[in-house]
Amino acid sequence: MGPELKELISYVGKLPGLGPRSARRAVLHLMKHRSSMMAPLKDSLTQVMEKVRDCQYCGNLDSIDPCAICCDSRRDRSTLCVVADVSDLWALERSGFYNGLYHVLGGTLSAMDGIGPEDLRIGGLVSRASDPAVTEIILALNATVDGQTTAHYLVDCLASVDVRISGLAHGVPVGGELDYLDDGTLSMAMQSRKVY
Amino acid sequence: MGPELKELISYVGKLPGLGPRSARRAVLHLMKHRSSMMAPLKDSLTQVMEKVRDCQYCGNLDSIDPCAICCDSRRDRSTLCVVADVSDLWALERSGFYNGLYHVLGGTLSAMDGIGPEDLRIGGLVSRASDPAVTEIILALNATVDGQTTAHYLVDCLASVDVRISGLAHGVPVGGELDYLDDGTLSMAMQSRKVY
Repeated sequence: MGPELKELISYVGKLPGLGPRSARRAVLHLMKHRSSMMAPLKDSLTQVMEKVRDCQYCGNLDSIDPCAICCDSRRDRSTLCVVADVSDLWALERSGFYNGLYHVLGGTLSAMDGIGPEDLRIGGLVSRASDPAVTEIILALNATVDGQTTAHYLVDCLASVDVRISGLAHGVPVGGELDYLDDGTLSMAMQSRKVY
Repeated sequence: MGPELKELISYVGKLPGLGPRSARRAVLHLMKHRSSMMAPLKDSLTQVMEKVRDCQYCGNLDSIDPCAICCDSRRDRSTLCVVADVSDLWALERSGFYNGLYHVLGGTLSAMDGIGPEDLRIGGLVSRASDPAVTEIILALNATVDGQTTAHYLVDCLASVDVRISGLAHGVPVGGELDYLDDGTLSMAMQSRKVY
C-alpha cells in the first residue's frame, strides 16, 4: 500500500477506541465508499475545523460564540454546572434535567498526567461565580480520585465568593443491583439514605 | 452542539467498529488535538482521495497504477492469488510468505447481500489467467459459505483455461488448541493429515 494510505491508517489508529486493525478496516470501508463516506467525512472535518470554536464563556464547543446554551434566554442564569469535559456537558444535556449554564474546565487536576490548575479554566470560573446573579455552583465532576481532588480544589478557590457550592449525589445507579455494587457506593448510598 | 459537530459525529459513527458513543469520544479527541490530529487527518484524507486508486490489473489500492506489487520485477509472475478484499491482500503480505501477484475480487458472491458475479472482478481474472505465463491460481478466499461458493464459481469460470487451481489448506491454526476447535475444522485437519 502507498505512503498516503499508511499515513491515513496511522492517524485513524490514533483515535480513542481504534487500534491498527480497526483503523485498517475503517480506512478500507472509506475507500469502498469514497463518494458516500470519504468525501463527506473530509468536508465535514473541514467545516468543523473552520467553524467550531470553544465558547468564550463556558468552554462548550459550538459553531457560534457565545455558544447556543450561553445565548439561550430560557436557561436559568443563576446556576453554573462545572464539568470536566464537553462530553460530560453533552451527557447532562442528553439527560434533559438541567436547565442552567455550564462551565467546562477542560480536564481534571492530575499529578500523573501533569495537569495543574493553570491548565484548566479555573480563573474564568471564579470570575463568573463572582457575578451577583449566580447563586449556585454545581460541581458535576467524576467520582474518581482526580475528579474529587479537583472538586476540593475548586471549593477552596471559590471560598471567597458568596455562592452556594453543591456536588452530585452518590448512590445506587438507577437500574443497578446492590449485589454488583462496590462497597464505597453502597456505604455512600446508606449514609445519604432518604426518608420517604 | 452545532450542526457541523453533529454531522461529523454521524459520519465517524458510521465507520465499522464505531458507534454513536465512541464517535463522540473520537470527535472530542480530535477537537482537543486540532493541530496535531484533526488537521493532519483532514490533509491525509485529501491526499488519499486525490492519489490512491484501484490498480487496473489486480485491484489493489495504491498511489501508483499499476500498483507496487504488479510493478515489482522480483515477484513471481506465474502465480495469481485470488482474494476477496484488499484487507486479505494486506494480511497475506504481512505474513510475508507469498511472492506472486494478486487478484482482488472486490467481495464474494452473496445472495443475502445481492452481490452477483457481475459485481466482482471475475472477467479480469479469467483474462489474466489466460496469459500463458500464468501457471497457478491460488484461491485464498474465506472458509465461509460465501467464500467457498465463490471459489466453486471461479473454478467453473476457469475450467476452459489451462492453469492449475489450488486453495488454501484447512486445518488446526498454529497455536490453536484442539479442545477449542469446531468439529468441521478438526475433521478437515484429520482428513488432510500429513505423514512426517
